[in-house]
Amino acid sequence: MIHFINTGGTFNKRYNRVKGTLEVPLDYEALSEILKNSLFNQKYKITQIISKDSLEFTKNDRKLLQKTIQNIKEDKIIIIHGTDTMKKSAKFISEIKDKKIVFCGAMKPYEINSVEATANLFLAIGFIENSKNGIYIAMNGVVDSYKKIEKDYKNGIFYKKI
Amino acid sequence: MIHFINTGGTFNKRYNRVKGTLEVPLDYEALSEILKNSLFNQKYKITQIISKDSLEFTKNDRKLLQKTIQNIKEDKIIIIHGTDTMKKSAKFISEIKDKKIVFCGAMKPYEINSVEATANLFLAIGFIENSKNGIYIAMNGVVDSYKKIEKDYKNGIFYKKI
Amino acid sequence: MIHFINTGGTFNKRYNRVKGTLEVPLDYEALSEILKNSLFNQKYKITQIISKDSLEFTKNDRKLLQKTIQNIKEDKIIIIHGTDTMKKSAKFISEIKDKKIVFCGAMKPYEINSVEATANLFLAIGFIENSKNGIYIAMNGVVDSYKKIEKDYKNGIFYKKI
Amino acid sequence: MIHFINTGGTFNKRYNRVKGTLEVPLDYEALSEILKNSLFNQKYKITQIISKDSLEFTKNDRKLLQKTIQNIKEDKIIIIHGTDTMKKSAKFISEIKDKKIVFCGAMKPYEINSVEATANLFLAIGFIENSKNGIYIAMNGVVDSYKKIEKDYKNGIFYKKI
Repeated sequence: MIHFINTGGTFNKRYNRVKGTLEVPLDYEALSEILKNSLFNQKYKITQIISKDSLEFTKNDRKLLQKTIQNIKEDKIIIIHGTDTMKKSAKFISEIKDKKIVFCGAMKPYEINSVEATANLFLAIGFIENSKNGIYIAMNGVVDSYKKIEKDYKNGIFYKKI
Repeated sequence: MIHFINTGGTFNKRYNRVKGTLEVPLDYEALSEILKNSLFNQKYKITQIISKDSLEFTKNDRKLLQKTIQNIKEDKIIIIHGTDTMKKSAKFISEIKDKKIVFCGAMKPYEINSVEATANLFLAIGFIENSKNGIYIAMNGVVDSYKKIEKDYKNGIFYKKI
Repeated sequence: MIHFINTGGTFNKRYNRVKGTLEVPLDYEALSEILKNSLFNQKYKITQIISKDSLEFTKNDRKLLQKTIQNIKEDKIIIIHGTDTMKKSAKFISEIKDKKIVFCGAMKPYEINSVEATANLFLAIGFIENSKNGIYIAMNGVVDSYKKIEKDYKNGIFYKKI
Repeated sequence: MIHFINTGGTFNKRYNRVKGTLEVPLDYEALSEILKNSLFNQKYKITQIISKDSLEFTKNDRKLLQKTIQNIKEDKIIIIHGTDTMKKSAKFISEIKDKKIVFCGAMKPYEINSVEATANLFLAIGFIENSKNGIYIAMNGVVDSYKKIEKDYKNGIFYKKI
């Protein structure tokens, strides 16, 4: 069984028609909609925490993430996270050695580009199936130890260091 | 590098506005559109063969599939295939022992449900990253050796035998 | 107030994931979904009849359509109808002189191309606002008396005779 | 022939994957995509000016809009405009008496909700077909003289004053 932790970020952003702005909602509607259309025979759990743009994550937010993971009994964990500090959070929780943890997110909100968000999420789901314990990032078609994945901030794309 | 073989099936079906019917096209437009939106920093190849509903596959079609795989030098191969005889084709090529081969497809055309098709494809892409040599099926959130995956024809869902 | 009569046709077609075919459903889900996203402050009614591909309409079906219209007290009526015999049905009910009746539909199912279906429907809604009594067809950006609109069966497009 | 003037506003907004924000682009890509899928046999022209959120329109912008309209020889004009000051612009150009002018836009970007944007645009297209000269607003299913249409800023919906 996979346990999803949804922390916010671009993946979840939704347009508020009254305010005219994109917001990180307090729910996991985007995640639910993808899984409803694609994960038919699998059981899973979802935990919702933080619900922020990852540029606004504080040290306390990362401590909460760490504690949440430690309290989860499943060993397969996928974390939906903003892209800007995804790697920083991965490093922060790197003391956890007994689980398979994959971070993913999206460069465009699911509401705008459902294909990219779905692709990143299922890259993580497929990868976690037979990975060893460790902390990984799955984005834009590349997936590996968080140490080997970098965000190219200029072009808005994740890549693998060689 | 991943080598995709596109053989047709529901995944690729498109609506013909003049005839008013869904057709399996001779191209890989659906696959291209997904990869364009989601696989930014990966190199890959695409080979197009057969282009049929999998109920219409003949023995010669399966021999062509087998030969195509044997001639490919990459060891990571993802096959887009109709769902009705996906398992039959997997068994047919099971003499091939030196590659990682993952079959996937969709229960609804990409043109109608982009999330399901994308999810199945990226389940395969994530899985192949660290799988052993073998022949696998990735559908509806489950992925394993083709021997362990079955299609529930009544409900239109793939599941894992326990 | 606009009264919609939904009779079936391509506009409504949905993919059945088990059978693998497109079906004309017995409901008006496509219509509801468009109106929910776009008609916020208007009251309207929906009547569902026939629910067929318009090539399969019988004389009795057209009599039912005629009777349904005659029993409706609103004078603004929009009919969702298959494209192949839309004009034939318009002619069949042409004895009705005291209402504004606009036929529309789609060359691609709403499920596949939401823009075309929405465009045809709202072409009708905008047109009916200040049209005179009469029977009209609104398709592919052209709208006029049903006598002046023709389907180009070869290219799958409606046009206005000059 | 209809002449579209695209001035910007929510209708056109697109997500910038690098900056992570919604921007009003300098082009009319959203409009083109809708018309490509729905206006098959009609000739039309598009003029692009201003390209701003309508809250940022200056007096000079409105003078430019006025002059642009006066220089257009077609008498059917549809203006894509931000919703916040759509009515203000309509009033500003109300000295123009010899044309049919319909303002429309969207509460959600076309990139996020293609149905709403398409519906508003085609409400305008259908309405202009047999309207008298005048200045109108077409939004959320209601269309009438700009004097009779109001934006409910609290709920983000346009309505007709009674």
